[in-house]
Amino acid sequence: MVDTMTKSPLAPGQFPDLPAVDGVTFATVAAGVRYQGRDDVMLAKLSAGTSIAGVFTKSTTRAAPVLDCQSKLGADTSAPAAILVNSGNANAFTGKNGQESVNAICNAVSRTCSVPENRIFTSSTGVIGEPLAHDRIIDSLKTLEANQTATGVETAAKAIMTTDTYAKGSAQSVEIDGKVVQIVGIAKGSGMIAPDMATMLVYIFTDALFEQSELQKLVSDTADQTFNCITVDSDTSTSDSLIMAATGASGIDALGNDDFASALHSLMLDLAQQVVRDGEGATKLVEIQVTGAVDDRVAKTHALAIANSPLVKTAIAGEDPNWGRIVMAIGKSGAPADRDLISISFGDVNVATKGWVNPDYREADAAALMKKQKINITIDLGMGEGSTTVWTCDLTHGYISINADYRS
Amino acid sequence: MVDTMTKSPLAPGQFPDLPAVDGVTFATVAAGVRYQGRDDVMLAKLSAGTSIAGVFTKSTTRAAPVLDCQSKLGADTSAPAAILVNSGNANAFTGKNGQESVNAICNAVSRTCSVPENRIFTSSTGVIGEPLAHDRIIDSLKTLEANQTATGVETAAKAIMTTDTYAKGSAQSVEIDGKVVQIVGIAKGSGMIAPDMATMLVYIFTDALFEQSELQKLVSDTADQTFNCITVDSDTSTSDSLIMAATGASGIDALGNDDFASALHSLMLDLAQQVVRDGEGATKLVEIQVTGAVDDRVAKTHALAIANSPLVKTAIAGEDPNWGRIVMAIGKSGAPADRDLISISFGDVNVATKGWVNPDYREADAAALMKKQKINITIDLGMGEGSTTVWTCDLTHGYISINADYRS
Repeated sequence: MVDTMTKSPLAPGQFPDLPAVDGVTFATVAAGVRYQGRDDVMLAKLSAGTSIAGVFTKSTTRAAPVLDCQSKLGADTSAPAAILVNSGNANAFTGKNGQESVNAICNAVSRTCSVPENRIFTSSTGVIGEPLAHDRIIDSLKTLEANQTATGVETAAKAIMTTDTYAKGSAQSVEIDGKVVQIVGIAKGSGMIAPDMATMLVYIFTDALFEQSELQKLVSDTADQTFNCITVDSDTSTSDSLIMAATGASGIDALGNDDFASALHSLMLDLAQQVVRDGEGATKLVEIQVTGAVDDRVAKTHALAIANSPLVKTAIAGEDPNWGRIVMAIGKSGAPADRDLISISFGDVNVATKGWVNPDYREADAAALMKKQKINITIDLGMGEGSTTVWTCDLTHGYISINADYRS
Repeated sequence: MVDTMTKSPLAPGQFPDLPAVDGVTFATVAAGVRYQGRDDVMLAKLSAGTSIAGVFTKSTTRAAPVLDCQSKLGADTSAPAAILVNSGNANAFTGKNGQESVNAICNAVSRTCSVPENRIFTSSTGVIGEPLAHDRIIDSLKTLEANQTATGVETAAKAIMTTDTYAKGSAQSVEIDGKVVQIVGIAKGSGMIAPDMATMLVYIFTDALFEQSELQKLVSDTADQTFNCITVDSDTSTSDSLIMAATGASGIDALGNDDFASALHSLMLDLAQQVVRDGEGATKLVEIQVTGAVDDRVAKTHALAIANSPLVKTAIAGEDPNWGRIVMAIGKSGAPADRDLISISFGDVNVATKGWVNPDYREADAAALMKKQKINITIDLGMGEGSTTVWTCDLTHGYISINADYRS
């Protein structure tokens, strides 16, 4: 199914050239968990001493591998570690069998790869509610162990795809005290034609040195400003997982280094936007900036209400600068706003100021901007200093075709 | 535009035969506010002593007529009253001009119809952000006053339509102490092809006797179980208004009468479902019942998360019994749920019990049910006694066509 999907019109030109990261190796294999004729299991091995941080879905119905990963984040970092991901089956809503599959996989990885079970992090993405054929994964472990290579990150990015229309990767290098550390990340989401949830999985690797608790704080904060600022359709996966591994193999401590934090932010934002660009049926990437809110949290509530509104998203699909729908979305969000203080612009075209249409506004100006692939919408609420930026895509016939026309 | 819309496949067979209500008269006129060649203003006159209750959108960007109506609910009921509604322009996001238009209309109605201004309730529905041509409405008032008739409710229901595909009405009669009182209601919403908000307006009339505060309580409670339990696309209008007028002309006190409360509930639910049946692009009416929640409020949070999920709604459009998406929607709602206690049925087909697929489940059974126009989904959360029922429609190419393909 993946192979027949047309690549998103918003896809980047090509997969970036990702460097090796000291202390990290990859291998992939075609285990036939569900898909045939393609790699569907990825194993990344991480050297002893690697700090691992994670951010996971807050869904109350989250999948067994997510719960398992969350329980392992605080483990002692002195041993080696591993990340194993399968595509095709999410191992979600599978009752007790879900955790039993995770346990079976972790036990087998531990024996085959000499990694303690509490340092093995698994993710599963694909169909919900079907038992995971974990035997097929376990049968592939010797191959995965034998074929580890430092340069396998692109094949890893491909192996974790479900109905993504392209593989997603990003890299940054940062100079600290005259030496260079690498940050490399891969992600999957949000194309979907099978009757599954669109899930988002993200793996980021660096050879910089971090204590686990410090890495966790940096990753959580940066995720709030990047992955937690994107939306395709307001529906939250049961499997969303972001795992970052800092091997420390460079020997360079990056704690408190602003350049590193900034590079990580850029990398995560790049991957997050790549996910939106692969949003189901997307033809426009939309950046929504809200300023003048009473605080940042309120700004984000308004921005996401706009970004998730079907009426706003269909208007953008129709290249219609329909600011009345933006006013509607602000009004329904439940967060503080004053109708008569709101100002709205599309790109550099001011449409409305302080609650009413700008007398100089000519719809032709805004309509011309709406024809672009990247749409910028700015809203000033006129009430305070709170601000945020979020990203979404439009809502098109493509979304309906992907999610309704296909029958399971 | 209205005339070219195809009637919803879920529309009732015909407009019901609505009886006259003692103390209520109607007239309509083609004022040309925006639409040409059709009636677009409705004036209902209510006898002295009529109690008026209202329920309105909670949007922070609500329109001037909504704010005006809310300020008048507590007025002394001894004088006659009037309800004036125009279609084609919502008088929303119109700054100070919005209230000035409302004031001009109310002042003119007061002079022409001998009704005090604080007993005149206006609604406007249609385009957002354009000044209301209130002079056209004022010029039509003498005609509206001269043509008042007790039997004009069907023309009133038509005059308040914007892009609805059919007029919506409902009636109930209740015997109290051997005498009969009438309840008649009309509504508009949720078809839309113009770049406006889908707005919902509801007017209910009875000749039963109520004190205003008691009528308000009954209407608010019943709205919570009917109109506040429907959703088409999760987007909340800036103009939603429900007004109920009890003329008392029958002399029959209905306070505390269970038959009356039950009849009002049936009427409001009928109108609410008629709005969903006219949901943009709808081909299926979906009833979602949640039981076993820790309380009723939590049940409603889960039910609306399911009813508003684009992935659930597109699956229904595709006649796909995709229960994994229901699990996802429960998980994302933020309200208490335990993955391993959830049971799900489509109609009488149990799909999953206590967190995993029912071993006897055959997808062909559920798939057959999904082909019906009315889909029933029941979810038991297994945690407590809280329950609710909500209604929605599917999300189809028709929704995209109505809201994206049309350019303003």
